[in-house]
Amino acid sequence: MRNIDLKGLLTKIREEGPLVHNITNYVVMNFTANTLLAMGASPVMAHAPNEVEEMVSLARALVINIGTLSDPWIDAMFLAGKKANSNGVPVVFDPVGSGATSLRTDTTRRIVRDLKLTVVRGNASEILSIASSGTVTKGVDSLHDVEQVAEMAKSTAKEINSVVAVTGKVDLITDGTRVIRCSNGHPMMGKVTGTGCAATATIAAFAAVTPDAMEAAAAGLAFFGLAGEMAAARAQAPGSFMIAMIDALYAMSPGDFQKRALLEKG
Amino acid sequence: MRNIDLKGLLTKIREEGPLVHNITNYVVMNFTANTLLAMGASPVMAHAPNEVEEMVSLARALVINIGTLSDPWIDAMFLAGKKANSNGVPVVFDPVGSGATSLRTDTTRRIVRDLKLTVVRGNASEILSIASSGTVTKGVDSLHDVEQVAEMAKSTAKEINSVVAVTGKVDLITDGTRVIRCSNGHPMMGKVTGTGCAATATIAAFAAVTPDAMEAAAAGLAFFGLAGEMAAARAQAPGSFMIAMIDALYAMSPGDFQKRALLEKG
Amino acid sequence: MRNIDLKGLLTKIREEGPLVHNITNYVVMNFTANTLLAMGASPVMAHAPNEVEEMVSLARALVINIGTLSDPWIDAMFLAGKKANSNGVPVVFDPVGSGATSLRTDTTRRIVRDLKLTVVRGNASEILSIASSGTVTKGVDSLHDVEQVAEMAKSTAKEINSVVAVTGKVDLITDGTRVIRCSNGHPMMGKVTGTGCAATATIAAFAAVTPDAMEAAAAGLAFFGLAGEMAAARAQAPGSFMIAMIDALYAMSPGDFQKRALLEKG
Repeated sequence: MRNIDLKGLLTKIREEGPLVHNITNYVVMNFTANTLLAMGASPVMAHAPNEVEEMVSLARALVINIGTLSDPWIDAMFLAGKKANSNGVPVVFDPVGSGATSLRTDTTRRIVRDLKLTVVRGNASEILSIASSGTVTKGVDSLHDVEQVAEMAKSTAKEINSVVAVTGKVDLITDGTRVIRCSNGHPMMGKVTGTGCAATATIAAFAAVTPDAMEAAAAGLAFFGLAGEMAAARAQAPGSFMIAMIDALYAMSPGDFQKRALLEKG
Repeated sequence: MRNIDLKGLLTKIREEGPLVHNITNYVVMNFTANTLLAMGASPVMAHAPNEVEEMVSLARALVINIGTLSDPWIDAMFLAGKKANSNGVPVVFDPVGSGATSLRTDTTRRIVRDLKLTVVRGNASEILSIASSGTVTKGVDSLHDVEQVAEMAKSTAKEINSVVAVTGKVDLITDGTRVIRCSNGHPMMGKVTGTGCAATATIAAFAAVTPDAMEAAAAGLAFFGLAGEMAAARAQAPGSFMIAMIDALYAMSPGDFQKRALLEKG
Repeated sequence: MRNIDLKGLLTKIREEGPLVHNITNYVVMNFTANTLLAMGASPVMAHAPNEVEEMVSLARALVINIGTLSDPWIDAMFLAGKKANSNGVPVVFDPVGSGATSLRTDTTRRIVRDLKLTVVRGNASEILSIASSGTVTKGVDSLHDVEQVAEMAKSTAKEINSVVAVTGKVDLITDGTRVIRCSNGHPMMGKVTGTGCAATATIAAFAAVTPDAMEAAAAGLAFFGLAGEMAAARAQAPGSFMIAMIDALYAMSPGDFQKRALLEKG
């Protein structure tokens, strides 16, 4: 796809080092912070209800991730999210494990209802859990192929008025009308904890430098997936692979990114 | 030891990818999740009192680890542990630092009293702190050799009605009557944070695929120790060693595991 | 500078393995623990208000780091800090993000007022935020060169009666009168999360083996910076660099440390 200036967006991140505020889970905080630093953004983690509004006011994007959820953190997510909304700061949401427990599903549904989200990124089962009850009862088994996932993603995007990114073998990005597919990535990414969460943070870094949410989601997933491909060329097991991914996020040139991103409409 | 089908157990983990629910400490969450993923299991971390019962109901094993303890987490440990007990889900317990502070020692004693544990893994001083007061007053200095450690472990296992695994130069696994010794491992493991905690999680992954707790503990420690040996052949310092360990957990074949495990009775 | 026995201090850490109690942020706990282990110290993380006094009583140094602050953790910081003060245990403080939000700035000012600190380590903007209001209103932009930073650090050190270490291109260590400059380090350290926090923990490990706070701060920053230089000789991107840093902290000989430390008075 020629019409996203991937080279320009990555250059902008590296020049401006946008502050990305993360309210994320304990497991992936370190990997997420290193992902953002390596790609050129500036991470900050803050979760206290009496701090997050002030922190997000300094930031150019907010990540909300429910991977290790508890009630005080939910309060902070809403305080930060509402402040981000009123300040025009993009909010990128990762509904980790939504559908698995009622705490996660209920929190996810409250978040998509009460906050204005820029992008929601999850796997097919997490995105499916967001939609209104009719769809949910069908379950993930109803998603037999990529076309059915695309239909589900489109209707969810319309319902929640946000760009939805469903990651899998091929990633789908949709605003409810348009669809972009991203084919970058590598299976070894599934063997490293936090790659999904870090992909979400990558989207947030791009959302900090472009107002176009479709563009930000597509650029983030292509960038992160391409780093996975570059890592797989150097490492054959998940420990050295995750280190090689951080290296690739840092070393990838804007020109290479533009050339090797596998994005297509439809 | 010929009578544990180590090859079959590892193959089963890789085929079935059992979900292991971890309530563990902040320091080791990332390394533990990557350990479980690399070996073929599926990790989840969840600690909210209003979520853990539902989460553990989806899991095939539960890890309780008190490495960064606080009161709300203790509540969650008991809620998850009791649910696991009533569902027949194995519970593997790591009493990190028990004996060092009264919060840890008291919590450990409540856990061994109120929950049915499958395996408890710790170093000699942690295991010693579990037993009733008579033994404790003797202190770790009373453990002059491996035979005394074995006697202490056996009496503790009988008292708490759980398999006890004491890790050290040689690991001892006992149900109070039988004893298995494991000689796999490498001194560099002591220079990487969370290797003990990850060994505990490894035991839980094996407990998810065999009902025999002695087998699960022996297999877990042999597997994790052997990964340490394989890592030491590639790396001479702890940073590259920990990455090489994750690689080895992924790369080790079931056949190599069976061949190189150093387990003996007695 | 010939008059700090760097070789002797590092040898002492490796021989004695002093316990360093960390109340630090979620993002860096793993990297901090691995830093301390690799250099030869013994890390423990504990944050529960009902445990920290007992834990710090076992330790030879305490690290307080406000990187992911919340109210219950603030309580624990004061409980541990006061106990450390009454026991004569050195307290090393890292005011992460002070100046960015009022929760962090206010907590920092309470800590420097109510606890006796051995060393405070931060970047210029964090250290500037500590001082009384007159100085603060000038802002970081008033610090045009290294001499102005030195003056600000000296007056802050006097005001709070602690050694202050300002890290940057050149690190400055001062007790308000004397100044030591450290030129070790590498720009890639800024691309890895938690290097500042780990440098603070390194200072604490040295404070555990010498009563001279200037010496401990200078030794810690030279040691950690030199590990960065050694890592940069092996790795050109931040993932492999952070692993090479852990390796270097372990592999560096006391003799090399003495020889390659770049410390000068004035």
